[in-house]
Amino acid sequence: MAKQIDINSDMGEGFGLYRVGDDAKIMEYITTANVACGFHAGDSSVMRQTVALAKKNGVAIGAHPGFPDLQGFGRREIKMTPQEIKDIMTYQIGALKAFVEAVGMKLHHVKPHGVLYGMAVRDEAIFRPIAEAILETDPNLYMYIMKHGVAPKMAEQMGIKVIYEFFADLDYDGQGNLVISRTHKTADPKPTVDKCLRMFKDGKVKTLEGTDIDIFAHSICVHSDTPGATDTLEALRKAFKAEGVEIKTP
Amino acid sequence: MAKQIDINSDMGEGFGLYRVGDDAKIMEYITTANVACGFHAGDSSVMRQTVALAKKNGVAIGAHPGFPDLQGFGRREIKMTPQEIKDIMTYQIGALKAFVEAVGMKLHHVKPHGVLYGMAVRDEAIFRPIAEAILETDPNLYMYIMKHGVAPKMAEQMGIKVIYEFFADLDYDGQGNLVISRTHKTADPKPTVDKCLRMFKDGKVKTLEGTDIDIFAHSICVHSDTPGATDTLEALRKAFKAEGVEIKTP
Amino acid sequence: MAKQIDINSDMGEGFGLYRVGDDAKIMEYITTANVACGFHAGDSSVMRQTVALAKKNGVAIGAHPGFPDLQGFGRREIKMTPQEIKDIMTYQIGALKAFVEAVGMKLHHVKPHGVLYGMAVRDEAIFRPIAEAILETDPNLYMYIMKHGVAPKMAEQMGIKVIYEFFADLDYDGQGNLVISRTHKTADPKPTVDKCLRMFKDGKVKTLEGTDIDIFAHSICVHSDTPGATDTLEALRKAFKAEGVEIKTP
Amino acid sequence: MAKQIDINSDMGEGFGLYRVGDDAKIMEYITTANVACGFHAGDSSVMRQTVALAKKNGVAIGAHPGFPDLQGFGRREIKMTPQEIKDIMTYQIGALKAFVEAVGMKLHHVKPHGVLYGMAVRDEAIFRPIAEAILETDPNLYMYIMKHGVAPKMAEQMGIKVIYEFFADLDYDGQGNLVISRTHKTADPKPTVDKCLRMFKDGKVKTLEGTDIDIFAHSICVHSDTPGATDTLEALRKAFKAEGVEIKTP
Repeated sequence: MAKQIDINSDMGEGFGLYRVGDDAKIMEYITTANVACGFHAGDSSVMRQTVALAKKNGVAIGAHPGFPDLQGFGRREIKMTPQEIKDIMTYQIGALKAFVEAVGMKLHHVKPHGVLYGMAVRDEAIFRPIAEAILETDPNLYMYIMKHGVAPKMAEQMGIKVIYEFFADLDYDGQGNLVISRTHKTADPKPTVDKCLRMFKDGKVKTLEGTDIDIFAHSICVHSDTPGATDTLEALRKAFKAEGVEIKTP
Repeated sequence: MAKQIDINSDMGEGFGLYRVGDDAKIMEYITTANVACGFHAGDSSVMRQTVALAKKNGVAIGAHPGFPDLQGFGRREIKMTPQEIKDIMTYQIGALKAFVEAVGMKLHHVKPHGVLYGMAVRDEAIFRPIAEAILETDPNLYMYIMKHGVAPKMAEQMGIKVIYEFFADLDYDGQGNLVISRTHKTADPKPTVDKCLRMFKDGKVKTLEGTDIDIFAHSICVHSDTPGATDTLEALRKAFKAEGVEIKTP
Repeated sequence: MAKQIDINSDMGEGFGLYRVGDDAKIMEYITTANVACGFHAGDSSVMRQTVALAKKNGVAIGAHPGFPDLQGFGRREIKMTPQEIKDIMTYQIGALKAFVEAVGMKLHHVKPHGVLYGMAVRDEAIFRPIAEAILETDPNLYMYIMKHGVAPKMAEQMGIKVIYEFFADLDYDGQGNLVISRTHKTADPKPTVDKCLRMFKDGKVKTLEGTDIDIFAHSICVHSDTPGATDTLEALRKAFKAEGVEIKTP
Repeated sequence: MAKQIDINSDMGEGFGLYRVGDDAKIMEYITTANVACGFHAGDSSVMRQTVALAKKNGVAIGAHPGFPDLQGFGRREIKMTPQEIKDIMTYQIGALKAFVEAVGMKLHHVKPHGVLYGMAVRDEAIFRPIAEAILETDPNLYMYIMKHGVAPKMAEQMGIKVIYEFFADLDYDGQGNLVISRTHKTADPKPTVDKCLRMFKDGKVKTLEGTDIDIFAHSICVHSDTPGATDTLEALRKAFKAEGVEIKTP
């Protein structure tokens, strides 16, 4: 069993006057932040503020680029060519990288956002341009993704460093697919913490169908807009520490 | 008299299906290109294509960031705070930088676009955040600007490296202000070439009022949408070479 | 003394997943709603939902068009030509009108949003294209505006029907200008209600400088994002009813 | 054989400084114009100018709404819900309607743009919200569409008035699908004119596979960016007139 775990969260998802989640609070509990890059959320001012907040909390920063669709929050599939996807990735990664380097930090990783994430997991033709954009920006960047679908094979084939992640507040089906119900009902952190510990210690997760599947992750993702997110994060940290697991950035 | 001159042009000003000017042709004559960064023109795909075109022609690449106003082509003043201006600058510079570095080149300079350029020349409160964004991205980057207004004083004060430029196809008034008439009438390159040579050799330009003013520049800007732009560029190169002046990137 | 008063509020200011204020609650207290039209806030789906909510509550619907600046929420001045301003007004008014007529209602009025509102009050060259856009769409539409600056003269000159409004939660200076501090401190409705009653009964308001100025309005505007907005609205309705004033749409 | 034909073209597809095709020239030859509504092309100023141009030429005006994707020119599929599609249709139709009514004309029809057009022909779930948006705006509006796929059945079922159109400069496959090659090679109008006459007189068109299929249309669409568009239009008018067919708006 690994002796360390990373906790990541999507940050900086506001735009203009709009805000989502309590970033300042969440930042106190996580080790890596995925920062929206202006296309599905996160304008340039929000980006700079989010980077400053991450730095203040000693949180590693990754880019969280998505489809150019603010209205749909990057959750509506857009049929772009692989080249177009690569281009919007490089653009957004570069933009965030400038803010990160401006505060003397280094960009840590890239995690595709929303529907693009799922498309990358399912489809080589989408995984490839995303990975290419990451590699051409900096071959040392990690790609955050779930260990599922085409991801492991493509990561190996393309020689990209991956950090596999587990979604604390989403469900899995029997095939290991993520079920984005966005209906995480309970604010009680206990079931979520237990689920994460089991993933970490036993490599298993119970699916929506009630069966167990194998699961592996270096990092746990908690969404800031999940009810009781900070309570869950606090309980999660306590539980992993009690197990002697170090909570740190990969 | 300096023995070298730079010729720059604004490139990559298309968006989606739209195109402006004949970039492929212009690139053959210039030494530095100012590439639009997606806010007033130039989407991520156009940016990558423009960077490739510049590389192919051995042309140095600068960022040409503007106001977030595609409809107004960055030519309509938007009352942003200095912080907001700094943020949109860093964002756009970072985005272009990623494309430039992806082809193994280094970003050469930054030139603010459109109305923002004029505002920077006139107003310290606008010059400052632009220069700050450039310096925080890379203190070795040049800022392209005209030697006028607050620019020389602010550049010195902030320790930013500047390349002064002269506008071959725009007019100056008696106070040295640029007159953006966009009504460059003649496609005959002769008067433009003579004007540039005089600027270079005598440090003078005739204003709209008919008087002479002092002028100094390291670089000559020719707009790609000026009638007869390539003829002008060709004649300009020939004339400067005949004078024994090397045409090269600073 | 008039025996009726209108209460209006800016509604539908969300965008995509983002929401501002509790529209469903506010709608129960107001008589007219100013609905954002997609440029500074309010995408097409939010617009339809807001129109449905207004209809359900028997609230009259006006268009609340602003500058094309989602990031700035229409609060940053953009130097457009009068023609461009007229064009963005007609576009947005037409868009909302379609949603209003689709539910069998008639568009009631137009109220310019944000910084454009202030520009219209101060500057004839801005008031005119806004009024022209309203008149060309439907000469029976009211324009909501404050009785200040060029508004009264321009309204008369252009023959546009105006409803003057009073801002319950903003301050006035000695010249009658609105002071948009957005720092309405208290959630106690009492001072706000007293201020509104005094405006209505005595035609006076105390300015930030402490002096009294004359004020006149057919309508009271309460912003949905003001702390304690619904309490204020409830208290306002009770106080006006106690005075025998009918609260209704003009 | 019908004794009249309509000729339509997509107009106003510029944005800001960008222009596509020679609208002023094309307008002289067509009887109906489909005007872009700001989402895939055509900002509010371009819309007003295009409406004025249509009026000057006695051309009927339809709305040409598309996906909110300026970069992709409405040619990239976006997975929106039917409700979202209905909402963006009503918004765009309403916006154009205001400009049309401002010059004293009535909106004539609606023609979905780009990839949305093809989706509507193939998929009931896409046809329905588009037709609903048209009907709720004005039940007398025509819907321009091709007589193929689900269109005839859905039009009858929903009680929407349709004008079927034939694409002069695109190809058909053996199943009657449109092949959007955008590679109309020849500027010679003869083959195009012959193809249109044959459609009109014999109700047949030769497919890419070389077979004949049945085809029926009330209107012929010529794209303004097809090479030799005005020559084709001129030849088309001449040929139909020679056959005694009246060229007029339905």
